[in-house]
Amino acid sequence: MSPQPASASRFAQLRRIESSPLFQTAVISIIILSALTIGAKTYELPPLAEKSLSLMDTGITLFFLLEILFRFTACPNKKRFLMDGWNLFDTLVVVGSLIPLDNSDAVLLGRLLRVFRVLRLVSVVPELRFLINSLLKAIPRMGYIALLMFIIFYIYAAMGSMFFANVDEELWGDVAIAMLTLFRVATFEDWTDVMYATMESYPLSWIYYLTFIFLTAFVFLNMMIGAILEVMSEEKSAKDAQQAHAERDEITRQLQTVQEQLKELTKQISEKPGGRSPPAS
Amino acid sequence: MSPQPASASRFAQLRRIESSPLFQTAVISIIILSALTIGAKTYELPPLAEKSLSLMDTGITLFFLLEILFRFTACPNKKRFLMDGWNLFDTLVVVGSLIPLDNSDAVLLGRLLRVFRVLRLVSVVPELRFLINSLLKAIPRMGYIALLMFIIFYIYAAMGSMFFANVDEELWGDVAIAMLTLFRVATFEDWTDVMYATMESYPLSWIYYLTFIFLTAFVFLNMMIGAILEVMSEEKSAKDAQQAHAERDEITRQLQTVQEQLKELTKQISEKPGGRSPPAS
Amino acid sequence: MSPQPASASRFAQLRRIESSPLFQTAVISIIILSALTIGAKTYELPPLAEKSLSLMDTGITLFFLLEILFRFTACPNKKRFLMDGWNLFDTLVVVGSLIPLDNSDAVLLGRLLRVFRVLRLVSVVPELRFLINSLLKAIPRMGYIALLMFIIFYIYAAMGSMFFANVDEELWGDVAIAMLTLFRVATFEDWTDVMYATMESYPLSWIYYLTFIFLTAFVFLNMMIGAILEVMSEEKSAKDAQQAHAERDEITRQLQTVQEQLKELTKQISEKPGGRSPPAS
Amino acid sequence: MSPQPASASRFAQLRRIESSPLFQTAVISIIILSALTIGAKTYELPPLAEKSLSLMDTGITLFFLLEILFRFTACPNKKRFLMDGWNLFDTLVVVGSLIPLDNSDAVLLGRLLRVFRVLRLVSVVPELRFLINSLLKAIPRMGYIALLMFIIFYIYAAMGSMFFANVDEELWGDVAIAMLTLFRVATFEDWTDVMYATMESYPLSWIYYLTFIFLTAFVFLNMMIGAILEVMSEEKSAKDAQQAHAERDEITRQLQTVQEQLKELTKQISEKPGGRSPPAS
Repeated sequence: MSPQPASASRFAQLRRIESSPLFQTAVISIIILSALTIGAKTYELPPLAEKSLSLMDTGITLFFLLEILFRFTACPNKKRFLMDGWNLFDTLVVVGSLIPLDNSDAVLLGRLLRVFRVLRLVSVVPELRFLINSLLKAIPRMGYIALLMFIIFYIYAAMGSMFFANVDEELWGDVAIAMLTLFRVATFEDWTDVMYATMESYPLSWIYYLTFIFLTAFVFLNMMIGAILEVMSEEKSAKDAQQAHAERDEITRQLQTVQEQLKELTKQISEKPGGRSPPAS
Repeated sequence: MSPQPASASRFAQLRRIESSPLFQTAVISIIILSALTIGAKTYELPPLAEKSLSLMDTGITLFFLLEILFRFTACPNKKRFLMDGWNLFDTLVVVGSLIPLDNSDAVLLGRLLRVFRVLRLVSVVPELRFLINSLLKAIPRMGYIALLMFIIFYIYAAMGSMFFANVDEELWGDVAIAMLTLFRVATFEDWTDVMYATMESYPLSWIYYLTFIFLTAFVFLNMMIGAILEVMSEEKSAKDAQQAHAERDEITRQLQTVQEQLKELTKQISEKPGGRSPPAS
Repeated sequence: MSPQPASASRFAQLRRIESSPLFQTAVISIIILSALTIGAKTYELPPLAEKSLSLMDTGITLFFLLEILFRFTACPNKKRFLMDGWNLFDTLVVVGSLIPLDNSDAVLLGRLLRVFRVLRLVSVVPELRFLINSLLKAIPRMGYIALLMFIIFYIYAAMGSMFFANVDEELWGDVAIAMLTLFRVATFEDWTDVMYATMESYPLSWIYYLTFIFLTAFVFLNMMIGAILEVMSEEKSAKDAQQAHAERDEITRQLQTVQEQLKELTKQISEKPGGRSPPAS
Repeated sequence: MSPQPASASRFAQLRRIESSPLFQTAVISIIILSALTIGAKTYELPPLAEKSLSLMDTGITLFFLLEILFRFTACPNKKRFLMDGWNLFDTLVVVGSLIPLDNSDAVLLGRLLRVFRVLRLVSVVPELRFLINSLLKAIPRMGYIALLMFIIFYIYAAMGSMFFANVDEELWGDVAIAMLTLFRVATFEDWTDVMYATMESYPLSWIYYLTFIFLTAFVFLNMMIGAILEVMSEEKSAKDAQQAHAERDEITRQLQTVQEQLKELTKQISEKPGGRSPPAS
């Protein structure tokens, strides 16, 4: 039984180091430095700078490896550590950078993995983590709207590639390309050029574009309103319940006072005559 | 009287099959398969694939026909079945695919009808049906705003084709083309090209475009705010009424307790002396 | 004294005609017909159609004149009739169409005036009138935001024409043209073309565009949020006050019952002993 | 002690002048005049007009100097005057215009400083000052969202310049240029041109653009919803608290009346028998 408390105190000590502002600042600084080296590599640099960047990169990789190992050691529950999505993401990014890469394709992959290190900023800064979590929570409520949007896009794309494929093969060649073209129309990006081209063959094709724009805009608008309302009603109901309780509590407390006063009174009345009835008898 | 319960039990049995997850999954799978064949047809395919797609299409049409007939048979009230908009839509789409099509124009029409089969996904998945219904409910409230928008577009289009028709016949030729051009301006799609062209003849025509953009943006913004408010106040009043009831109920229940206590007290007081008044008389 | 009641009854009779559905429908139909003739004139027409349109136009002008005179006669208070903005607008549009126009410039003016007849639809349909009134009410609250936007545009336009006038005279020639160019940038209309042109001379000019876009977008966003909140809080406070009253009324009514019961009880107690005190005295 | 009240009264007198409508109107007029001269200078003017503008500019600079000195004199607390951001801004702009400028570069700087005089309108009109203050207050709540947006842009820019730099050096040359290109994509400005160019080398690069657009749009949308909710809940809680108090106050006042009635009653009952018990004893 003696080793356990010792290890617990060691865990506590490690955790104290882990959550110290100095450690946190160091980690954030290294992540920002890592981001800067990634950015610097996109510029043409003299060989010396390239070399020092490579060295720095190795240093950062080592630091991240040590940091992850330290955090893993500091965590008393190893299983929960690996179950946490953010830790898993950190581990994957760091371990991924360790794989030695030789040929040019793999180098690109290695650089890509290093880019994702910037996302470690999200996993380290709690406010950003909270923000991402709340954004992730917003996704499911958009699920069916997204499905509906996809159906609208698919139907219009099928129709578009059916009729307009002979007008412009590059825009309406098949259903996939047509969906990309429709997404372009939905962002209003040179959509009239697309329309004017098809209107030369099909003069009424403006109906196709206008109905599509109105439909997507209408569904999007309603989705936005729905999202505002849902979040709002959630917050509101939580707050209202709280406030209503506070308000009601004040009134019910007073009412209980009244009820107790009445009970007291009733007791007095029923007791008094009882006290006085002996003399009356 | 005996055949009726028998048919009722048969209906119940059919309905049980109809609403079984297996049946639902099968229908949804076939609809998705149907959507995929529609998409596949937009690609250039080897003759063999074309043939198998045609066969598959016939199979899907038959399945849909059987499914509709089955659902029609399973429905005890045949009249209500046909009154339901979704069933009617399903029936039309399926029956439409049955018509034999020979010449090329009709083939295109047949393919178009098959595209609408994808919409059957909406009629089968209850969540999407609910979504569409709620979107349809949002249309009437936009009626008068849409009319106002149309009036603004019409007046500006009439003015535009009056003044700018000689500048660019293709953009301002008549009131209908001018409305399409104005819709383009309202989506900010290369609107400055349109403006710069007319500003060469009418240097002050930027007033026309800016007032139009401000007007439409202003009306649109107010429409959006109005829509948010309307839906919100509907939900709010429904919820508030519910909550207010819950809150008030708690307080009024307590107040009734107080009133009953008081009645009891009054009765006691008026009875007690009454019980004692005989000795006093 | 006798003519007055007679005229009053005549007024009432005229008003009854004016507000009859038949009269309203006729006026709306003629306005729509008027809108259609305006639209038809933007197409190239055979001489016969042109002539019949001219005749129709004269007929519509006469009808509108008679309608205004009729409504003026039907209104008991002539002064209030002319004070109403919608009536004044109607009168101006109708009287404007009566002026005989000879030379080509005046013909264009006459056609322009006829375009505004379409707006009479707004003055006749009560729902549209209500909508326009509510939109007009929204303008003042945007006053200072509009002023602030104008100041931002003016400052950026002055800076723009100071630095970029030598880059592109047509986009940045003077402060007025520069403001138009900035409005184009604010609508994201080919703004990168404008930026790339100035970035060749001033490589850092992207700061100018990005700060401008962020500023205007930020002010616009806050204006929109402000507008939503203002309208919402207005509606809310109106509704809440109403609802709160309804709720409070229920509780206070019960409380008054309690108070009355208590008074009654007090009276009983103070009277009873009084009724019994004589025998006690 | 006698000089102090004298100076206090002199301060009061100066302040009265400072806050007089006449003084305010004069200052605002001069600021607008200053804005107009700045705008006028962007036009090509005859030499005489140029000269009179220069003279006017000197006059305006002198007026602003005198106005600042006057307001400084009128302020009893000199330190607080300089601590106020708006006063500091006014002083800097005015003092900046006093520096004599000879060479052409400095002339441009001088003109730039004069442009910022227009901002003095914000510091003088209280409604605009209030508006700006409320906008400034909205900035911090967008801090972490802006950081998240920056991270998204940075990661995509790093990836973009990694893969697409060989496609178009001018759009994807380094991470900074790539961020500018991505901002262009985020505003939907000719984004398909950018995409089509990279799709020729990387046919799957549409995934890059679509995920980027969805991510930024999704984060932006949630930021907007968050902003609306935050401001709303602030206003709501302030108002609700107020209203709830008003409502509760009415009920609690009545309840207190009830409690006092009960106390009175209890006193009566306990006193009466007590008053009557002596005769009974």
